[in-house]
Amino acid sequence: MTNPSNSEIDIVKSSKSKIKDVDFNNLVFGRIFTDHMFVCDFIDGVWQQPKIMPYQAMSFEPSARVFHYGQAVFEGMKAYKDENGKIWLFRPDENHKRINKSAARLAMPEFPRDYFLNGLETLLKMDKEWIKSGIGNSLYIRPFVIATEPAISASPANSYRFIIICSPAKAYYSGKVRVLFAEKYSRSANGGVGFAKAAGNYAAQFYPTALAQEKGYQQIIWTDASSHEFLEEAGTMNIFFRINDSLVTAPISDRILDGITRKSIIQLAEDNGITVEVKRVPVTEIKEAARNGSLKEIFGAGTAAVISPISAFEHAEEVFEIPDNEDSYASLFKKQLLEIQHNVSQDKHHWRHEVK
Amino acid sequence: MTNPSNSEIDIVKSSKSKIKDVDFNNLVFGRIFTDHMFVCDFIDGVWQQPKIMPYQAMSFEPSARVFHYGQAVFEGMKAYKDENGKIWLFRPDENHKRINKSAARLAMPEFPRDYFLNGLETLLKMDKEWIKSGIGNSLYIRPFVIATEPAISASPANSYRFIIICSPAKAYYSGKVRVLFAEKYSRSANGGVGFAKAAGNYAAQFYPTALAQEKGYQQIIWTDASSHEFLEEAGTMNIFFRINDSLVTAPISDRILDGITRKSIIQLAEDNGITVEVKRVPVTEIKEAARNGSLKEIFGAGTAAVISPISAFEHAEEVFEIPDNEDSYASLFKKQLLEIQHNVSQDKHHWRHEVK
Ligand SMILES: Cc1ncc(COP(=O)(O)O)c(C=O)c1O
Ligand SMILES: Cc1ncc(COP(=O)(O)O)c(C=O)c1O
Repeated sequence: MTNPSNSEIDIVKSSKSKIKDVDFNNLVFGRIFTDHMFVCDFIDGVWQQPKIMPYQAMSFEPSARVFHYGQAVFEGMKAYKDENGKIWLFRPDENHKRINKSAARLAMPEFPRDYFLNGLETLLKMDKEWIKSGIGNSLYIRPFVIATEPAISASPANSYRFIIICSPAKAYYSGKVRVLFAEKYSRSANGGVGFAKAAGNYAAQFYPTALAQEKGYQQIIWTDASSHEFLEEAGTMNIFFRINDSLVTAPISDRILDGITRKSIIQLAEDNGITVEVKRVPVTEIKEAARNGSLKEIFGAGTAAVISPISAFEHAEEVFEIPDNEDSYASLFKKQLLEIQHNVSQDKHHWRHEVK
Repeated sequence: MTNPSNSEIDIVKSSKSKIKDVDFNNLVFGRIFTDHMFVCDFIDGVWQQPKIMPYQAMSFEPSARVFHYGQAVFEGMKAYKDENGKIWLFRPDENHKRINKSAARLAMPEFPRDYFLNGLETLLKMDKEWIKSGIGNSLYIRPFVIATEPAISASPANSYRFIIICSPAKAYYSGKVRVLFAEKYSRSANGGVGFAKAAGNYAAQFYPTALAQEKGYQQIIWTDASSHEFLEEAGTMNIFFRINDSLVTAPISDRILDGITRKSIIQLAEDNGITVEVKRVPVTEIKEAARNGSLKEIFGAGTAAVISPISAFEHAEEVFEIPDNEDSYASLFKKQLLEIQHNVSQDKHHWRHEVK
């Protein structure tokens, strides 16, 4: 079982770029894709020759396992362009490790590091015009793996496809977010797949989130499924609570995604002399802190939105508004993260990775 | 939002049947598909004109939601042919209701009953040569719905495809099954999607099941994720325990699939004067019953295998063998179910549905 050397990407260039048709000032997230994509098939126990080809629809058997049993994992990452036109990734090794952790939990093969990084960098260089400079602009990168074997027995597939597609993303001010603390529905179980970026985890959240939206809340903060007493994470973000001048966030578990933004913020907090307590977060404690005024901020942390300040939450039919905070940690961390990502500030933890 | 009348299926017949190439004596489950498939797209809030066409690969955007967020639900049902060549379904309305329950939980549109039944019946009549008579032979039917919209934002899709594919299945004696009671991993959470036939529920079981297989167990009996103290169901079967002359099975909940075989067995047990207790089933109680000899049988119940007798289980490193039982309920119910399904015996509950 040898994989071909990573230099051997088979490249087919698109004959004409679509970039001129794209209005970069009015991008809706995840609808427009760049000119190329990276594709690599896993057949007979081996990752085959990787390819870069024009972004295009592909043919799948209706019996492909992914359609029936949800064997599908993904990652979300971004590329940034600095003022000198250099291209940067942010901690890409973490995404590579995580997609393999997700894959293992779904009985899918791991994808080699050199394929991942070399494939991604080659793709980014080909589509570099799609990455716009300026803080907040980025190219959203979606690596994913799906089970392609055309056989509907409920067991792990023998063939898979690894794909990377890219979509330009605009800096946008989404406004503050109002959230509902989950009391009935849940996102993941002990001993389940909540820690994995498994496709099925996301569809499971759509209906409860739609119910929350009808009540005027954009998102749900999930609680533990056993008791609904502890706050865990949001649909695509880890969550931080600021109590007076300290931060609290839930520990990583088999129910919670080990977010790269989360772990970067924990480090940045330390760099800024801000205490972070990683511990189970009781709903009662946060409600009490909201009542006595010690709850200063709640914010979400994830690659897509970087940091999302939360302005209010509801639990047990009671609504708590969180007063605006002039010197918010949310804006501090957002600024510091974006400046590292865009090669504006010093990168003392070596998080930036140049695409050369 | 009007749907076209169900008489208007757009039919394209395959030019040549593949059936001559198929060895019906050596069928591997779910690998061979019949000549035709049923396809219906949901676009702009409306199910479009349904189609029947040759079974074939189809084109999908790599950004189709199903690949990223697991918006996919399915059903499993069978068609039978009796000795007079008549074709029968078993409680097909239950499958229709259940796929819509699954769809609703995943924020997907419901599929109209007349489309479902008329589409399925038309398809079965076109592929009727693929249904072989004889007890145990059947045509396995796989209706499924997937999110096709090419946009990777984590929200419900606006376009879907409903498909039915069919695969001939052979009667086979799979041997008795040895199972592991789950102690660490789990299948579903309170407030989750375990009750739905959601694609993601199945991939999540593959890795723990592979670990069980390494220990010599074919399947896992899942326990509740909160305490692992109560037995729930297997990967694709509900589970019955026979204590002396009574049956015990777990109640349906938001974690457990409402199996059609399960509910039929509960009815058949009543018809046979056998008591069924529907209640939470403590692991300790089953272990105690195994020790004192009152545990006579454990069997799984589901469309694919009908009834699977279980010969042993392991829990907490302790293995319990279940002695063979001459007059097993498992074989009684299997025989009675198959005879109803194949139009051999009387059908007093009107479960059979003729495809005319
Ligand atoms: C469930 C979930 N939690 C948290 C996050 C944040 O992780 P990261 O900071 O690595 O983007 C994501 C995704 O991005 C997620 O899907
Ligand atoms: C999780 C699960 N439980 C139980 C069953 C049995 O249900 P039914 O008897 O309707 O086939 C199935 C599927 O067939 C299943 O997927």
